[in-house]
Amino acid sequence: MKYFASRMDHVPKSFIREILKVTENPEIISFAGGLPNPNLFPIKEIQEAAVKVLESDGKNVLQYSTTEGYYPLREYISKRYYEKHSLKIDPEEILITNGSQQALDLLGKIFINHSDQILIEKPGYLGAIQCFSLYQPQFRSVSLKEDGICLDELETVLKKDKIKFFYGVPNFQNPSGITYSLSNRKELAKLLTRYSVNFIEDNPYGDLRFIGNDIPPVRSFMEEGGILLGSFSKTVVPSFRIGWVCAQKEIMNKLVIAKQGADLHTNYFSQRVVMQYLTDYNIENHINKIKESYKKQREKMVEAIEAYFPKGISYTRPEGGMFLWVELPSFISSMKLFEKAVAENVVFVPGSPFYLEGGDNALRLNFSNSSEAVIDEGMRRLSKALKSFF
Amino acid sequence: MKYFASRMDHVPKSFIREILKVTENPEIISFAGGLPNPNLFPIKEIQEAAVKVLESDGKNVLQYSTTEGYYPLREYISKRYYEKHSLKIDPEEILITNGSQQALDLLGKIFINHSDQILIEKPGYLGAIQCFSLYQPQFRSVSLKEDGICLDELETVLKKDKIKFFYGVPNFQNPSGITYSLSNRKELAKLLTRYSVNFIEDNPYGDLRFIGNDIPPVRSFMEEGGILLGSFSKTVVPSFRIGWVCAQKEIMNKLVIAKQGADLHTNYFSQRVVMQYLTDYNIENHINKIKESYKKQREKMVEAIEAYFPKGISYTRPEGGMFLWVELPSFISSMKLFEKAVAENVVFVPGSPFYLEGGDNALRLNFSNSSEAVIDEGMRRLSKALKSFF
Repeated sequence: MKYFASRMDHVPKSFIREILKVTENPEIISFAGGLPNPNLFPIKEIQEAAVKVLESDGKNVLQYSTTEGYYPLREYISKRYYEKHSLKIDPEEILITNGSQQALDLLGKIFINHSDQILIEKPGYLGAIQCFSLYQPQFRSVSLKEDGICLDELETVLKKDKIKFFYGVPNFQNPSGITYSLSNRKELAKLLTRYSVNFIEDNPYGDLRFIGNDIPPVRSFMEEGGILLGSFSKTVVPSFRIGWVCAQKEIMNKLVIAKQGADLHTNYFSQRVVMQYLTDYNIENHINKIKESYKKQREKMVEAIEAYFPKGISYTRPEGGMFLWVELPSFISSMKLFEKAVAENVVFVPGSPFYLEGGDNALRLNFSNSSEAVIDEGMRRLSKALKSFF
Repeated sequence: MKYFASRMDHVPKSFIREILKVTENPEIISFAGGLPNPNLFPIKEIQEAAVKVLESDGKNVLQYSTTEGYYPLREYISKRYYEKHSLKIDPEEILITNGSQQALDLLGKIFINHSDQILIEKPGYLGAIQCFSLYQPQFRSVSLKEDGICLDELETVLKKDKIKFFYGVPNFQNPSGITYSLSNRKELAKLLTRYSVNFIEDNPYGDLRFIGNDIPPVRSFMEEGGILLGSFSKTVVPSFRIGWVCAQKEIMNKLVIAKQGADLHTNYFSQRVVMQYLTDYNIENHINKIKESYKKQREKMVEAIEAYFPKGISYTRPEGGMFLWVELPSFISSMKLFEKAVAENVVFVPGSPFYLEGGDNALRLNFSNSSEAVIDEGMRRLSKALKSFF
């Protein structure tokens, strides 16, 4: 009985889901997932906020609500963009979504016709590849360099193909940890504007810069066509699934229609709890605590690479975020390394799921969800697996 | 700049969204929305449950979680089907979704190819029409009769067209309030099985039967092809957006892939709070309270129709749920009545959004979200608007 839609034929399997099954074994140290450090969750504060909204406004916070999201929360997001980056975004142009992952799905839905060409980074966020795949586009990809997107490659693609949008993660990219420099952003914005191509700018990690200074979003340099995503998953809590997308009115109208069909609205209680938390506490203090911790964890991981890994292995030195990217010599397959690593009770994500093709000589390591001691031990194990190839 | 996907060309405007703007005026009595009665929300109990899960397991309840949903909640749902209807559904075949609305979107995504023929009720749930529209099917529809779906019409369609699935709401249907009888369900199951057509059985109101006895889901009478939806929005709280879909393994696998791309997982904190609430309290007692109240509200509405409406108007007498359906004489347009009703400070949903075409001589009234006194006053106003046509 062949009754599924043809779009389901083209979805890449989620390798990460398979890995997660392996990591149920408590002996395993996992650098595979993309989990924030739960020791830093503001549990007491969230509890206070939850009690407060229920006691003061229970009937409303438990009722159905609007598709667009809680207005004061959208105002807060608007205000913070202005304060942090002098970026003016009208609250009316912000839609609250179930994490920024849902924003990707809604954007795919409103933009992608079958066979449309869309552009992603190489390597790219696999959740985006998976989500967009369901709308059956033709993927194009552009390499990342140390300072951002490869502009020459980008221009070649823009000249040759009719690109619907470019999707990228300019801050501490997933999986590479790379950040686009200020000049790279400005040039990127110019190029996209010249070719009238929208930029879907995903920014889940932007607040987590632990080295150097913040750089304004690419959207700051685009008059039109900048679609900016954000999330409270990495700064407040992940399980609430509260993210957002900023888009100009015409796009916003379509997103609202798509969101309404998709689930009516995002969990309103959690929107109210987050807003209460943001009102009663200084989020910047909390973010500073996260950054302090991730900085140490990332330093420990780099230290361990230097101390334990064989020579001939290169890696990124992210200035923020949660991931670090390792490139192996061409004779080592990360899939084969994965098998050996499992035998040593440590796991990571092999490179190929982040590529449309190839990418097997790289791997992604997550440092946010392990203590320094665990990172040290895990990296010892990983280096043991690595050395077996030499 | 024509850059949206063609699927966005075909979405019906949401008339209800427009109505909601009108109802921001506090003078207006609204029978338009589909809101549960907030006076019955278990606010204190939810608060207790929230505090409990945060205190006992804060790090986990705030962390990312699995796409399928919290396993004990899926076990609870499975067990309740068995206890209530002797229906065996494996917890592995239950996916937690953002309200049952998201289940509709995911089902549309995995099943509908462009131009596939799908079948809905006439009148039908407009959220389903809107959501499925985005996958660009060809809609077919089958009339509802007093005891359920019109089987003759159904067979004619099944013979003629290659139907991908039939979507229906057998209990206290939205918008009509109609319930499929036991024999109607059995015949429907037989017909669908004979033609190998899946049934998407939406059941948001099934627990809210205030007259007569429960009837088992249509799925009980189908060996294969029964996809059953459910929700806590009408029995616990709406704002959490916790619903579910039960489907056989092959379909479940596709749904999980679609769900992962759509938003990774449903708000995990709220899943845990609902489960804690279900563990610590007797939900049946709570549901009984809701039913008692809705029964009185529905009786008041029928009483008011009898007392105030001009003759020649027919209406359904729902045995549960939240809606009642009114059919007007052919010379009264419900859109024109709507304008006059707004002038009298009362609103409802005109019939046509529930139809693929036509339907203007009917309207939907919600009785769950107004007290008996408000229902009485609102119906007086509506009858005044009605009488102006005579």
